[in-house]
Amino acid sequence: MPELLFPLDSAKKFNEQQIIGHNRWHPDIPPAVTVKRGATFRAHCREWFDGAIHNDDSAGDILNAPLQNVHCLSGPFAVDGAEPGDLLIVDILDLGPIPQEDSGPLAGQGWGYTGIFAKLNGGGFLTDQFPDAYKAIWDFAGQTATSRHIPGVKYTGIVHPGLMGTAPSAPLLATWNSREGALIATDPNRVPPLALPPEPDGAILGSLTGDEFNRVAAEAARTAPPRENGGNQDIKNLTKGTRVFYPVFVPGANLSFGDLHFSQGDGEITFCGAIEMGGFIDLHVDVIKGGMQTYGVYENAIFVPGNTAPQYSEWIAFSGTSVTLDGEQKYLDSDLAYQRACLHAIDYLTKFGYSPEQAYLLLGSAPVEGRLSGVVDIPNSCATVYIPTAIFDFPVTPSASGPHRVDPGMGAPRASFAG
Amino acid sequence: MPELLFPLDSAKKFNEQQIIGHNRWHPDIPPAVTVKRGATFRAHCREWFDGAIHNDDSAGDILNAPLQNVHCLSGPFAVDGAEPGDLLIVDILDLGPIPQEDSGPLAGQGWGYTGIFAKLNGGGFLTDQFPDAYKAIWDFAGQTATSRHIPGVKYTGIVHPGLMGTAPSAPLLATWNSREGALIATDPNRVPPLALPPEPDGAILGSLTGDEFNRVAAEAARTAPPRENGGNQDIKNLTKGTRVFYPVFVPGANLSFGDLHFSQGDGEITFCGAIEMGGFIDLHVDVIKGGMQTYGVYENAIFVPGNTAPQYSEWIAFSGTSVTLDGEQKYLDSDLAYQRACLHAIDYLTKFGYSPEQAYLLLGSAPVEGRLSGVVDIPNSCATVYIPTAIFDFPVTPSASGPHRVDPGMGAPRASFAG
Amino acid sequence: MPELLFPLDSAKKFNEQQIIGHNRWHPDIPPAVTVKRGATFRAHCREWFDGAIHNDDSAGDILNAPLQNVHCLSGPFAVDGAEPGDLLIVDILDLGPIPQEDSGPLAGQGWGYTGIFAKLNGGGFLTDQFPDAYKAIWDFAGQTATSRHIPGVKYTGIVHPGLMGTAPSAPLLATWNSREGALIATDPNRVPPLALPPEPDGAILGSLTGDEFNRVAAEAARTAPPRENGGNQDIKNLTKGTRVFYPVFVPGANLSFGDLHFSQGDGEITFCGAIEMGGFIDLHVDVIKGGMQTYGVYENAIFVPGNTAPQYSEWIAFSGTSVTLDGEQKYLDSDLAYQRACLHAIDYLTKFGYSPEQAYLLLGSAPVEGRLSGVVDIPNSCATVYIPTAIFDFPVTPSASGPHRVDPGMGAPRASFAG
Amino acid sequence: MPELLFPLDSAKKFNEQQIIGHNRWHPDIPPAVTVKRGATFRAHCREWFDGAIHNDDSAGDILNAPLQNVHCLSGPFAVDGAEPGDLLIVDILDLGPIPQEDSGPLAGQGWGYTGIFAKLNGGGFLTDQFPDAYKAIWDFAGQTATSRHIPGVKYTGIVHPGLMGTAPSAPLLATWNSREGALIATDPNRVPPLALPPEPDGAILGSLTGDEFNRVAAEAARTAPPRENGGNQDIKNLTKGTRVFYPVFVPGANLSFGDLHFSQGDGEITFCGAIEMGGFIDLHVDVIKGGMQTYGVYENAIFVPGNTAPQYSEWIAFSGTSVTLDGEQKYLDSDLAYQRACLHAIDYLTKFGYSPEQAYLLLGSAPVEGRLSGVVDIPNSCATVYIPTAIFDFPVTPSASGPHRVDPGMGAPRASFAG
Repeated sequence: MPELLFPLDSAKKFNEQQIIGHNRWHPDIPPAVTVKRGATFRAHCREWFDGAIHNDDSAGDILNAPLQNVHCLSGPFAVDGAEPGDLLIVDILDLGPIPQEDSGPLAGQGWGYTGIFAKLNGGGFLTDQFPDAYKAIWDFAGQTATSRHIPGVKYTGIVHPGLMGTAPSAPLLATWNSREGALIATDPNRVPPLALPPEPDGAILGSLTGDEFNRVAAEAARTAPPRENGGNQDIKNLTKGTRVFYPVFVPGANLSFGDLHFSQGDGEITFCGAIEMGGFIDLHVDVIKGGMQTYGVYENAIFVPGNTAPQYSEWIAFSGTSVTLDGEQKYLDSDLAYQRACLHAIDYLTKFGYSPEQAYLLLGSAPVEGRLSGVVDIPNSCATVYIPTAIFDFPVTPSASGPHRVDPGMGAPRASFAG
Repeated sequence: MPELLFPLDSAKKFNEQQIIGHNRWHPDIPPAVTVKRGATFRAHCREWFDGAIHNDDSAGDILNAPLQNVHCLSGPFAVDGAEPGDLLIVDILDLGPIPQEDSGPLAGQGWGYTGIFAKLNGGGFLTDQFPDAYKAIWDFAGQTATSRHIPGVKYTGIVHPGLMGTAPSAPLLATWNSREGALIATDPNRVPPLALPPEPDGAILGSLTGDEFNRVAAEAARTAPPRENGGNQDIKNLTKGTRVFYPVFVPGANLSFGDLHFSQGDGEITFCGAIEMGGFIDLHVDVIKGGMQTYGVYENAIFVPGNTAPQYSEWIAFSGTSVTLDGEQKYLDSDLAYQRACLHAIDYLTKFGYSPEQAYLLLGSAPVEGRLSGVVDIPNSCATVYIPTAIFDFPVTPSASGPHRVDPGMGAPRASFAG
Repeated sequence: MPELLFPLDSAKKFNEQQIIGHNRWHPDIPPAVTVKRGATFRAHCREWFDGAIHNDDSAGDILNAPLQNVHCLSGPFAVDGAEPGDLLIVDILDLGPIPQEDSGPLAGQGWGYTGIFAKLNGGGFLTDQFPDAYKAIWDFAGQTATSRHIPGVKYTGIVHPGLMGTAPSAPLLATWNSREGALIATDPNRVPPLALPPEPDGAILGSLTGDEFNRVAAEAARTAPPRENGGNQDIKNLTKGTRVFYPVFVPGANLSFGDLHFSQGDGEITFCGAIEMGGFIDLHVDVIKGGMQTYGVYENAIFVPGNTAPQYSEWIAFSGTSVTLDGEQKYLDSDLAYQRACLHAIDYLTKFGYSPEQAYLLLGSAPVEGRLSGVVDIPNSCATVYIPTAIFDFPVTPSASGPHRVDPGMGAPRASFAG
Repeated sequence: MPELLFPLDSAKKFNEQQIIGHNRWHPDIPPAVTVKRGATFRAHCREWFDGAIHNDDSAGDILNAPLQNVHCLSGPFAVDGAEPGDLLIVDILDLGPIPQEDSGPLAGQGWGYTGIFAKLNGGGFLTDQFPDAYKAIWDFAGQTATSRHIPGVKYTGIVHPGLMGTAPSAPLLATWNSREGALIATDPNRVPPLALPPEPDGAILGSLTGDEFNRVAAEAARTAPPRENGGNQDIKNLTKGTRVFYPVFVPGANLSFGDLHFSQGDGEITFCGAIEMGGFIDLHVDVIKGGMQTYGVYENAIFVPGNTAPQYSEWIAFSGTSVTLDGEQKYLDSDLAYQRACLHAIDYLTKFGYSPEQAYLLLGSAPVEGRLSGVVDIPNSCATVYIPTAIFDFPVTPSASGPHRVDPGMGAPRASFAG
């Protein structure tokens, strides 16, 4: 095991640890740890809601999920000698649930969760069709996950960090706040919101205190969106063995990460859509001096995925185009096309006995492929979603004999705000 | 070889053949061929522009591509006993370039093409960055393609039909015309257009003649977009061995297909972006009676992809988010995110010596994966594009020694409308 | 299609064609065709028994298979400028059943066969357990095969040439005859024989006639075994896209090939164990001058397999060790270990309703992996055999509910010599 | 983490632990742990030589490896309710090097080793060509391994237990001793030996003591060979996620395991040929009552491999036939054919600058495929060996420009008995 440089005690809250991480992006959050180029180290990661979601059969916790508190990030890790203009090499050597802890109240202790946020608190990709909150608990057995809330399915997780990135420079942060503020201003009362402005309430900023804390908390960017620094990209393919190249914007690069996922479908469509967990990650870091210019990588990560993602060879696939459920033709809208493809998949799975929300939770969490199949055939985009058939313990492709009926069991817990 | 039910003579134009296909969607185009349930048959397919694009080093043909003439479709094939409400099973048994013809003036005779349409005639995914026309010619050697216009790259094609679908019913056609007309009406003079209305000029309608031809030509839908019937989905994963399930809207189903691609990246981003070719396709058809209701498949295809697509195990991947090149923040726009990811890939490849248009043509035609990685992390979508590294004959991942420089050769031919 | 340089008329016997191939190895068989370095061409291949095996429900043809007539080889192809000491590059661009002929009496016309040779005429890997002759006929649909003699199974073939090689030099041929003769001499009356000596009866030697024919027929090596020149290696992984490097022993290299297989399991265990067919093959050839010395390849082929073999991700696997069925301990005998693994697989499949010979025929013909798992753990080798579970249309892994029972149908036709 | 039921302290010898395992097979070795059906648990495993091999640049430890001490096995684990005639289900949930220990003197503490045994002490697959002892040390970084003794190569390990099995019954043990004794008796002084008889010296037998220890030590079978109970099968495909089914011969099944491998090529050809390490393994066990009869599995394991083995898509492959280096023709000897294929691979790699022993060590330890390609083409078997090209940091396939030369560095340490 590489040296553990960022430990977390599962019995304590994220802001009560020996080393305190952060949940906002800002260049002035001091490094929590400094490592040399070429270093290999381990860090613990807290699940993104810091224990607010429980291993039970109620979705009340998802309904009231404290969105201002996310994401619990481990870091920043400063890398000696990294300078703006460099590329930071990050090798994801290993990652997984909380080591040595197979049970307990914290996601990552042998279990994880997938949630559907209520439209009034977070929303999601299909929030118009699923305005209430739902939850599924997943039990881990080695690399596989099963859920008492979604019977008949079992799969090998595609484990990855949902969020990883370098610290923004001050000008870059200013750009973020400016452009996102402008978007919010176009419809400031929208539910769910268009974007999330800086929010001091709930901010955790490492070792900062006092006025500096207050200043930074007022300026710091929220961690929900991916941006130029990487961040919450939710790329399911950042599996073990992946090498990522991040642009460096501040001296030391100041790498942070978290939001570990035991598994996730492309898009993380329920928003809380992966199998969320805390755990550990082993990283190796190095630097390509001047790499941003050399390779033309000025923003967003580039990466070489690992080669041990779970292999599936048969898929049942669904397509969608950019026409709304109400029949309105949109112009080359791949998000809409992907929504329609996902809704088609949900419709299909309900014929096998699942509730729509069970199917939705499944699409968000299983190793599902989501492809931009056609993006130029005016006016319709075509998006496709692929579910591995082997995850079901019954035949799931169409046949002359009609669909097998699965017993949906207790179903996915539901909670809603009083109407 | 299955019985050839739809032959094409490479020496003749598409509308001078023994059996004449069509290039518009309409329920009243009579079946060209009728087959029984369970039938296996071969059909020839003409490349989508019916020979207008040449194997030469000029992009003038792409510049002036006759868009009103596309797509040359083989069919309709009526399937005995198929009724509205059924699902039509289509097994793609085999497909490939024009058999027994290894050279000649017609795409599919041992070669194919990828084009970038000019903004003033068609446009494409990155038309603002690439407003002119470009072309690359690909030579086939078995399953692999190489191009004199893009040196240093060679890949196994992911062969598939770009377009396949059943005939719309009259009400469905009316819905298409209505909703697309409404979209066009929002900006009728846009260049490129938002959508393409019915266009009698250039229409080919099988055996129809006279007044019936004129009526249908005035009503029939263009073939560019994918729609409820499948159509031009450009799903690269419809490879050999794939089983597709199409909804049936008219008696006999009236299946048509064409637009064969020797290879294509997800999105077919240059619009003329696959490696376009004519060729053959062997199909097996059957019917699931009442399948639309049984499986909840009322529109768009569902499918089980084949298992012999080319295997690659190492990829160089790029990510993008929904911020415009001008810095404007858009809300969860995966098309924009994918554009940015593709532009990042192009920027990167230019560091290795390619021209931007060579890189763009490569992304459109190689077996490239395009994923909707994050679609909920407000306000930024995250899209990712993955290029197999093995297609390059030089190392293409970042290293301390910097990028290898490829000799770009003659480059991709270019043509533009006089300014 | 590349230029067809070696045509075969399906209505004529192999030795009545326009160009006559051969069925023995000898340096003095004249080239049938001469091509330049860099040439791409097509050749037809006759199934190995030249039509002696029929598409029917009797195994009498297998029982009496004319072993002295095999293998019908296309060639020799001389490559201009190839000299002894060079490596001949052979790219397998494409191959498949007889083009344009979907039905007929010749294997490759839409169908193929797998046989179990009788112990008294050929034998096979498990000939002690299966002393009689059996046959299974396979019907092709695109890339997939099914058999009326083995219900419940369907698979994507792993298409390859069973036999390909360069001509031996005179000294090399003398070496073969010497060493194989010495082996035969140790037990000259063994049934089945230890090896096959030169056999003028049935010899086909291209354009040779008269005394020269007689001389060569008396000296020429049989084609059954693989040898230094490649030959009948039966490597299932020589799929489309494979590049093979053969040592060159005579001027022109004199490449020959045939014995096309629609599919085969590792080992081709029933001897006539692949799905045998005639068909076509498209090749590209080139030369690495002095390559034998440069790369240390003095014998046997080296190769880079293609990347479109059928993909399966779930397997049911069986192991065996080098102990005989009678309980005798053998020393590190991987052939015995593989026999035992195959017998275990057969025992297992019979619990699902198959007859032992159906299971045996399946193992020989499906895309089955056979691995030398342990070869050093004295005294037991460990060999393993892996069957893809997706080829069965029922669940084939063990479960608490016990094995599904398949209806074995008519079974595999059987024939035996009168006792 | 599942409950740790079999802990090992890295600072203590295997026979000084809190729970003592065993290194012989015998029905009367008492269970070390008893678990219920359905249990999930963790066990530590000691590397097979209990620390005798060091992380240094001398091969003296390999030369004098104490073969009478192997293999250190964790167990026996009795499973409540398992009875002879049942099948024991073992799910390999996870496994890896020693957790939390990244450095130290014990293989598994961040490193592992591959050895070539000297002919006078162990031997190996190519012992006639490599009569001396050699060693390579591998450093682990997450899932990948590199070696200072074999530069230019890096690969993702295919992690698996080399040895796992159930206890033999008394009659089964007697059978083993009888048949192996008979083999030894045919050449009792052979070097290396044909098989290993019971050997009290070095025996570790769990909690047994006194006379019972002495009796069992005199009868117990050595652990080197795989047998009916599974045992040292060295199947590289028993990766994470694998489900194995073992026959049960004694009440409780008495499962034991060890000999963890970070990686291994098919055959484990150098005998000490995997990357050897200690570590942990997480298992889930269950029982199919009466499963041996139900599924016809009376001996040897059957299994369903996991789906996260490292993926490689390009291979350089070598073939061999059953002719000795001296030119003697052997009859269908796949071990010889595989030796020749491996020797061809070694010859080839030496052209790139490696020493023969570096190449041999590489073949034994990398995720190399070894297939029984042809086993019926009398008199020659054809075996093939496939090396993934991506493990080399230089191009390794043949080209017109000749082989790249790698700097072999210090090479593999060597040691030999004084001549």
